Amino acid sequence: MEKFVNSDFKLGIITGGQLGKMLIQEASKWDLTSYVLDTAEDCPAGKLASKVFIGDYKDYDAVYNFGKQVDILTFEIEHVNIQAVKQLKAEGHKIIPDPDILELIQDKGLQKEFYQNHNLPTSPFQLYESKEKIIEAIDSGKITQAFVQKSRKGGYDGRGVAVISDLNNHEEILNGPSLVEEKVDIDKEIAVIVARNQQGQVKCYPVVEMTFDPKANLVDKLICPAQISQEQTNQAIVLATKIAELLDMQGLLAVEIFVDKKGQLQINEVAPRPHNSGHHTIESVVTSQFEQHLRAVLNLPLGSTELKLPSVMINIVGNPGYTGPVKYQGLEECLAIDGVKIHLYGKKITKPYRKMGHSTILAKSLEQALTNSEKVKNLIKVIS
Amino acid sequence: MEKFVNSDFKLGIITGGQLGKMLIQEASKWDLTSYVLDTAEDCPAGKLASKVFIGDYKDYDAVYNFGKQVDILTFEIEHVNIQAVKQLKAEGHKIIPDPDILELIQDKGLQKEFYQNHNLPTSPFQLYESKEKIIEAIDSGKITQAFVQKSRKGGYDGRGVAVISDLNNHEEILNGPSLVEEKVDIDKEIAVIVARNQQGQVKCYPVVEMTFDPKANLVDKLICPAQISQEQTNQAIVLATKIAELLDMQGLLAVEIFVDKKGQLQINEVAPRPHNSGHHTIESVVTSQFEQHLRAVLNLPLGSTELKLPSVMINIVGNPGYTGPVKYQGLEECLAIDGVKIHLYGKKITKPYRKMGHSTILAKSLEQALTNSEKVKNLIKVIS
Repeated sequence: MEKFVNSDFKLGIITGGQLGKMLIQEASKWDLTSYVLDTAEDCPAGKLASKVFIGDYKDYDAVYNFGKQVDILTFEIEHVNIQAVKQLKAEGHKIIPDPDILELIQDKGLQKEFYQNHNLPTSPFQLYESKEKIIEAIDSGKITQAFVQKSRKGGYDGRGVAVISDLNNHEEILNGPSLVEEKVDIDKEIAVIVARNQQGQVKCYPVVEMTFDPKANLVDKLICPAQISQEQTNQAIVLATKIAELLDMQGLLAVEIFVDKKGQLQINEVAPRPHNSGHHTIESVVTSQFEQHLRAVLNLPLGSTELKLPSVMINIVGNPGYTGPVKYQGLEECLAIDGVKIHLYGKKITKPYRKMGHSTILAKSLEQALTNSEKVKNLIKVIS
Repeated sequence: MEKFVNSDFKLGIITGGQLGKMLIQEASKWDLTSYVLDTAEDCPAGKLASKVFIGDYKDYDAVYNFGKQVDILTFEIEHVNIQAVKQLKAEGHKIIPDPDILELIQDKGLQKEFYQNHNLPTSPFQLYESKEKIIEAIDSGKITQAFVQKSRKGGYDGRGVAVISDLNNHEEILNGPSLVEEKVDIDKEIAVIVARNQQGQVKCYPVVEMTFDPKANLVDKLICPAQISQEQTNQAIVLATKIAELLDMQGLLAVEIFVDKKGQLQINEVAPRPHNSGHHTIESVVTSQFEQHLRAVLNLPLGSTELKLPSVMINIVGNPGYTGPVKYQGLEECLAIDGVKIHLYGKKITKPYRKMGHSTILAKSLEQALTNSEKVKNLIKVIS
């Protein structure tokens, strides 16, 4: 660590959203200098970053030029211009996670093939080049059942995913290369964040259970620890560790897993970065996911992932029907509830279901945290 | 809270040291805009503050002009120009804590009289106008025993305090108005931080025990919870609450207390702000002292002060013999110990015993935290 704090070391983060902001909050505890690449000076991380470079994460020149300015480059989003980070790596720059991992994870088709090649449990799938090829497969009787379609690239927060229940209705089928998978008969969705440093040290976070708001196609509550069996918990941790090791991962890897109605675990997808399902760790775990990402990225010893208190996390999202300069309601009432923590990301404009902040609700028992989180959910309104 | 986050509300903080920095780290979670007054642009809080105003906290114009720029003015140091904050208050500006409280606490003589007037336990004392008057009192036989002398104003971190053991040696006696008090036969030193908002809601933090490094005259370890009896704990909390209520305090009040060899509590002194003895709360308590100060200053409901894990805090101070651009050693080894958190304030220059950062050591048992804190203390070196 001395080499980072005793020098003019610069950490580069692509991009400056809420994950970048929370990463810089942790980095500031060690007095690290953080540079951010984002399209907007007033992005959430903008107020805290030492410097904001304006540019698009999908643009070769923006990413390449930014990477040249910093000592280690890391990410809050995996959909970065891959040629630029490969070129930076070729020139000897430190890119964490490795561009090869980013490239694999960017493409949900390659991700699924990776699980298949390593005999890791995931739902059966086929790859298609286009919407037309999927329609052909339906017409030829190759696809006979309702399915989930996922764009191979660029999906995020529920975008790039279509659930096709009626095979005769082609309207909802997405354009472009995609994968088609069987609808898993889901009992629960869980997530495990695993951290790994260059020396191969691995630490797993307690398993989190995610409940979904079917309307918004967004996480409703994140419950930690997950209400699953000890055996399922162990299996999830083994899976996450195995993926991180097979990828030779450095940094954080968030692994989203389905538990099907038979109690079997199936890998959904992974993200090579701090993750929405780890926000609660800021207050509920000895080492937050953001501090852990820094430790892993800087190849420092990883920190304890011991749970301090059970917690529930809810995203604070824009209420439907409002688009414009954001206004919050109900925050004060929430703060009157013991164990309620509020994080506002500083986004200026609200949109329906846009992630504007989050609240972590701590309590001595998970039951109490769940009860209080329901109150918080009903109290907070994000309008314009 | 909505009135702060839905507007262009500005929080003003005098000054931008480590307490200011950690206050802004909390404020950024609510996306509050923080302005800082400090003599140096590159003060610890400088990297995070929305704006740094250059000026001296003892200077009337600097404080007055800064106060005019912000919506609520608060402090990390109580020795602020009192005329300026009184004038701001007279003009209707929000100053928290109240200038009258700052004025009382700035003057250790007035503080002692306050305890005396309210029958609060504190060691007997006399006030003296000058060093000469003290020497007169020694010569005339009015002072007959070894004593502790404290400058009435400006003392901080062990400065402005003299322990006079040899009444014939006048060299160590401080100049200027001071108070002379009997040396308390100290068994332990403890501290309680109490928070109070405008509505009179009060929350006390768990009592902390401070052990001192006799060489540096600085805190060595801060141990939470304090290893004292339940009765002493209750007494300390009652005392702290009483002082906060008598002062009609808004904000945080840190109360330092001696436990004498007979087990009796005696108030040492108070500070109306976040305090060194509360740094551990960032990781070990549900609501950190910094979040609590924000809640109290903004007149929001106060948060839970429940302890999540036992903790020990040690200051990371400049090693004696080094003055110059700072270099840290041993940090990485510390991070390898479970539950060790490192905070570096970002001061560029180290000096002997200068507070450069702190480490909080969390563990399931206080014994383990104490063992690990001893390792951390021996590992970290701050040199130049």
